[in-house]
Amino acid sequence: MEQYKDLNYNLPSGFDIELIPSEKRLESYLLDVIRTVFERYGFTPVETPAVERLEILQAKGNQGDNIIYGINPIVSSSEDDESKKEKNSRALKFDQTVPLAAYIARHLNDLVFPFARYQMDMVFRGERAKKGRYRQFRQCDIDVVGRQKLNILYDAQMPAIIAEIFSTINIGEFMIRINNKKILAGIFESIGVNKEEEIKLYIQIIDTLDKVGKAKVKQNLQAQGLSDSQSLQIIDFIEFKGSVTEILDFLQQKATEINNSDTFHKGVAELQSVINGIKELKVPTDKYCIDLSIARGLNYYTGTVYETTLINHESIGSICSGGRYENLVGIFAGEKMPGVGISIGLTRLLRKLLDNNLIDKMSATPAQVMVLNLQQELIGTYLEVSKKMRDGGINVLTEFDDIKLGKQLKKANKLGIPICLIIGAEEYKTKSCKMKILKTGEQLDVSIDNLVDEVNQKLLEI
Amino acid sequence: MEQYKDLNYNLPSGFDIELIPSEKRLESYLLDVIRTVFERYGFTPVETPAVERLEILQAKGNQGDNIIYGINPIVSSSEDDESKKEKNSRALKFDQTVPLAAYIARHLNDLVFPFARYQMDMVFRGERAKKGRYRQFRQCDIDVVGRQKLNILYDAQMPAIIAEIFSTINIGEFMIRINNKKILAGIFESIGVNKEEEIKLYIQIIDTLDKVGKAKVKQNLQAQGLSDSQSLQIIDFIEFKGSVTEILDFLQQKATEINNSDTFHKGVAELQSVINGIKELKVPTDKYCIDLSIARGLNYYTGTVYETTLINHESIGSICSGGRYENLVGIFAGEKMPGVGISIGLTRLLRKLLDNNLIDKMSATPAQVMVLNLQQELIGTYLEVSKKMRDGGINVLTEFDDIKLGKQLKKANKLGIPICLIIGAEEYKTKSCKMKILKTGEQLDVSIDNLVDEVNQKLLEI
Repeated sequence: MEQYKDLNYNLPSGFDIELIPSEKRLESYLLDVIRTVFERYGFTPVETPAVERLEILQAKGNQGDNIIYGINPIVSSSEDDESKKEKNSRALKFDQTVPLAAYIARHLNDLVFPFARYQMDMVFRGERAKKGRYRQFRQCDIDVVGRQKLNILYDAQMPAIIAEIFSTINIGEFMIRINNKKILAGIFESIGVNKEEEIKLYIQIIDTLDKVGKAKVKQNLQAQGLSDSQSLQIIDFIEFKGSVTEILDFLQQKATEINNSDTFHKGVAELQSVINGIKELKVPTDKYCIDLSIARGLNYYTGTVYETTLINHESIGSICSGGRYENLVGIFAGEKMPGVGISIGLTRLLRKLLDNNLIDKMSATPAQVMVLNLQQELIGTYLEVSKKMRDGGINVLTEFDDIKLGKQLKKANKLGIPICLIIGAEEYKTKSCKMKILKTGEQLDVSIDNLVDEVNQKLLEI
Repeated sequence: MEQYKDLNYNLPSGFDIELIPSEKRLESYLLDVIRTVFERYGFTPVETPAVERLEILQAKGNQGDNIIYGINPIVSSSEDDESKKEKNSRALKFDQTVPLAAYIARHLNDLVFPFARYQMDMVFRGERAKKGRYRQFRQCDIDVVGRQKLNILYDAQMPAIIAEIFSTINIGEFMIRINNKKILAGIFESIGVNKEEEIKLYIQIIDTLDKVGKAKVKQNLQAQGLSDSQSLQIIDFIEFKGSVTEILDFLQQKATEINNSDTFHKGVAELQSVINGIKELKVPTDKYCIDLSIARGLNYYTGTVYETTLINHESIGSICSGGRYENLVGIFAGEKMPGVGISIGLTRLLRKLLDNNLIDKMSATPAQVMVLNLQQELIGTYLEVSKKMRDGGINVLTEFDDIKLGKQLKKANKLGIPICLIIGAEEYKTKSCKMKILKTGEQLDVSIDNLVDEVNQKLLEI
């Protein structure tokens, strides 16, 4: 025992994502909600291994080599000769998108397109340590991927899915902000910026608006070559506020003025279709808006883009983001495969929700009932009653140890178990038990025969 | 596009655990069943990161250094100065037990003991490549851990849990084989083997009985120093067969004959208590037996041990194993923390079940209904009907593309979606739809108002 006492058993920096039971139960609940909504829309589960060939991860990273962890056996004699050739050739995935592209290529003939999948695994990023930034975290992603083409209505489904998830988990008011990158690219084209690389650069500057503010964005746009009036024009445009209808009207008006950018016209038409679909899917109107400043810095987005913010807690940042891309997941299959997807960074989101008290806590155990131990001779009865309740769908802890009743109740309280069942010699004789509700102290006599129904009824009430 | 075509997008050797959608859905289903049963007995979820400090993983491995994968950034300039000190100090976990010991030390004051947790994460082992052996796989583990002591009835709960899981997932007849390592150790003591290290070695030889056969075991026992008659005595003992009652009687009888081993007597008493508990928990008598040859080679087991085999498919090996240990998970907390646990190697089990056709296949999508697209002008109606059904708890795919009806039905068939809804101009006028059951070809007219109930009813029938 002694020999290990001096070891540092803390988690390595950035990997301290471990949750205590009550928090982990909350994560399980969130995962259940997210998965249920994903499946309602016909998304099917996929899980790719943590490890891929390094060259695959490097093929089209949205981050680059500097965040990739390689894996190697710590002892070079392990594995086998074949595998020794694999030295420095394997690494941990840093997102779910590159693995999705590889998965599609690996299983092309087994998949039906458009392919709608969800994935909720862990990813690994060797980034600089920073509070709230993790080196391993869970991302809950969905993507729909088409061959050659993909209907714009898939873009309209995404906000319906986001709204359903965040309404269900009850974390307060939120807003899904929708835009289209063709509109942003088009507005730059309309003022005479035509090189794709320049437009990408400008859009990345716009993407910082929330963080650095208007003045700094204007300054940066000018530093890259825009005139004072051009940069003002851009900022006025992306800052235009209004209802969905007002912004669509504004964009239609702009479109009549702009005759030097097809991209702009395409973007407005796409956004219009997306909004139409959202309305037909009956997404509540207070849950989404058009925000012309949403840019999603990532270059691979080519059309619709989304961000989601918690109202009054905007500093948390976007809790669910994504968009449409053209050339991302077909790269290994060697085909054009446009897709649209969203991502919830669950590890970070849960931490933020907990730290800001934005979500209800859960108990430290799934047990709903604890069967107390009053007399060691009645242990057979305790086991039978426990079994009976489990068969009735109730989660049960049985106390096996002969400890004081007060201590047993204290334990049930600490675990957050709502109901305790007390069976002593008297109750044993009458085939009954005392059902104690810990929160209220209420105590009821119940016949063992009716126990499952009575407990299920009580659980609904409390 | 072209530039990535020559890359090898296959998974690295041993990491080819990826499932196609229909298989992954089956794994999700198995995980749900396993989790539900674990929670019925009050086990709470825990997940530890994939990465731990290397020295922690090395502290008390049951395998040793030669299977551990280290992780390092592929570019030494990433992470930060603090983390550079971490070079070669971090590694991937190879089981859930060492991380459990570290978790307990890290959160000692947040936990209630006996601490009952389940964990279903991935572990990583850099072993020699071999068919059916994976370098990443999911292990579904439960353990109950006490401080200083742990009631023997926790050992009795394990077979109840195993029986409930494998009865639910319906993979045919199985047998839970129970033994106690003190009985094995005791029988060696009774023939005059008293050194702990020698006993461990002999027990490891016994553990190979299934694989190498009786003659070879006898030979190996003699090679280590047992006489011909001693080795025969041992083999006769571990091969004694009979009902639970018969074997318990045999052991009681033996106990009266053996007066030079307390260990033997303790083991028999423990086994008797475990069997009593199992009976009181009403585990079906055809699901478990006592098998005196079960040895579980792992040295850390000190009492009850379990293995589970599929009847008529014994070659698959044990599908769920575990046992009682004294000095395993308290090592970092620096306390005696006896525990009992079981483990299901789910990745391997699922592969074996699929390869041997031992489990029903599932469809490639969770969608239960597909809303077909007959007229592009009715897309609003299709979206509304889809939304209505989703609100009624039904998983729905909507066809957005204007493709031939036959092709849409073919797609639904390939995905295994049981019901298609057909709404054309006629149905739109009468606010009705055609509900087509793909398996039978049956087609029914249903009012849109009753659609949720009718579909839910049909889903129950088919």
